[in-house]
Amino acid sequence: MRETEIIDWIKSAVRNNYRDKTLRRGIGDDCAIVSPRAGEDLVFTSDFVLEDRHFTLDTHTPAAIGEKALARSLSDLAAMGAEPVFCLVSLAVPAKLGGAFVEGFYKGLLGTANRYAISLAGGDLARFDQVIADVMCCGRVSRGKALLRSGAKAGQRIFVTGKLGAAAHAFAAGRPILPVPRLEAGIALRKLGVAAAIDLSDGLSLDLARVCRESNLGAEIFAAKLPVARAATLDEALHGGEDYELLFTAAAKIKVPARIGKLPVTEIGVVTRGKPGMVLLDGQPLQSKGFDHFA
Amino acid sequence: MRETEIIDWIKSAVRNNYRDKTLRRGIGDDCAIVSPRAGEDLVFTSDFVLEDRHFTLDTHTPAAIGEKALARSLSDLAAMGAEPVFCLVSLAVPAKLGGAFVEGFYKGLLGTANRYAISLAGGDLARFDQVIADVMCCGRVSRGKALLRSGAKAGQRIFVTGKLGAAAHAFAAGRPILPVPRLEAGIALRKLGVAAAIDLSDGLSLDLARVCRESNLGAEIFAAKLPVARAATLDEALHGGEDYELLFTAAAKIKVPARIGKLPVTEIGVVTRGKPGMVLLDGQPLQSKGFDHFA
Repeated sequence: MRETEIIDWIKSAVRNNYRDKTLRRGIGDDCAIVSPRAGEDLVFTSDFVLEDRHFTLDTHTPAAIGEKALARSLSDLAAMGAEPVFCLVSLAVPAKLGGAFVEGFYKGLLGTANRYAISLAGGDLARFDQVIADVMCCGRVSRGKALLRSGAKAGQRIFVTGKLGAAAHAFAAGRPILPVPRLEAGIALRKLGVAAAIDLSDGLSLDLARVCRESNLGAEIFAAKLPVARAATLDEALHGGEDYELLFTAAAKIKVPARIGKLPVTEIGVVTRGKPGMVLLDGQPLQSKGFDHFA
Repeated sequence: MRETEIIDWIKSAVRNNYRDKTLRRGIGDDCAIVSPRAGEDLVFTSDFVLEDRHFTLDTHTPAAIGEKALARSLSDLAAMGAEPVFCLVSLAVPAKLGGAFVEGFYKGLLGTANRYAISLAGGDLARFDQVIADVMCCGRVSRGKALLRSGAKAGQRIFVTGKLGAAAHAFAAGRPILPVPRLEAGIALRKLGVAAAIDLSDGLSLDLARVCRESNLGAEIFAAKLPVARAATLDEALHGGEDYELLFTAAAKIKVPARIGKLPVTEIGVVTRGKPGMVLLDGQPLQSKGFDHFA
């Protein structure tokens, strides 16, 4: 299969994809074109998924890799409280996997794209020794309303959505699970007026420390309060990556619901005037053992 | 060097980077935030540079790889007649190259970013067996004014900027040259009102065929008119990739200058009602021998 044939196939597959009204032109030119609406900010993120780091060809089908690639990036939109607009997908695959892999990957990715109403607008396609994908997602929020890591204030309560440690536990058991981006929750939290948010991609201990660093504050959390996933350990809940739940902080005046849709929301601690970036667990310093790509 | 230290270094390096006024937030959160201006369209592109496909560690310094990664993507903005706004950079490097490679890569990339007034706003950083980068660039144009591949009309003259075949010739001689994105020319051509444009990344024969396909028309070009680079062959000028010059078409009423700044502009042929996607060279069908990643 030649590159032009593969791209023609992708173009035809995209015809059934959700199409954002502000996307003037998608695949087929040097760039995609977007006409932003007045009064909105656009937010942008990109995330790699790399063979033998984020998946293996043994544990993930091409469709699951496509789904994971998009979901990881969508999770960053969720953390800003943004609504999905469009994505660009750069994909490199070994020649021996060829067109069949590309087709499976895009079927998985487009299924996820339709579920979360995001348009595939372009990207790049190349041959390489291993499978690599880089997905850029664009989202929208009302101007000035994006949820930031740096928005936390001392005294605010800290919450997480869902259960923690499930991804690390499943991974350890050799049954990796696919991320579910918490877009509905992110938008609900933004409308509720929460102060700061992040998605838990690298583990609670590391991601909470990031919020603390960016907000120039400390935090204290409590083991007994953590919503540990069934069968997962406390360690997996504290340091396991890839849960893709949202962590957020809220001022006392904000009434945080116990659930958003079916998703539970749990208070786990408090923002403090402690050493900036330092997280305490039951009064003791908690080391950030979350995933560090270069450690 | 830990990931957080590398990211801190990148953040400090970015402080001296050109900062677009519409970029509200760059590196340091889950997403970058942009407040688009009224009446503008935003255009988006992403391009891989992959070890042993687009460069080797023997022929390119880390800085040259960073420069090339950004320049390739900027060239797509040039092809739309767009002004650079911001970029996201996803970079994966082997652990053994570590922080020194990342530093060199970003120094090269940021030098190019400052030269063309584009802000580095975020991206991803990962460890991998080989060096891979994916650069997403965003540009702006007045609403509805982006130059399209599909804008060509029968009877329009076809032009190229610069000289052709230089990159292929230098590559064959083992002295690869770095791309120069023709942003100034692209903006000038848009203001001039040219009809269609593309950047010559994969070779004249393939890229002109793309304009023809998207415009549903044919084209005829003439060997004697081609601005072949010094020492390059006609074959290198016709099929060699990576020249990153602009190809465009213009209606009879448009007065196309012989130079844009110092860059020569050469008329090489005409858009025809021939078979859509078919290019003739001196009356004979010209095969698209340009770079096909999966051929």
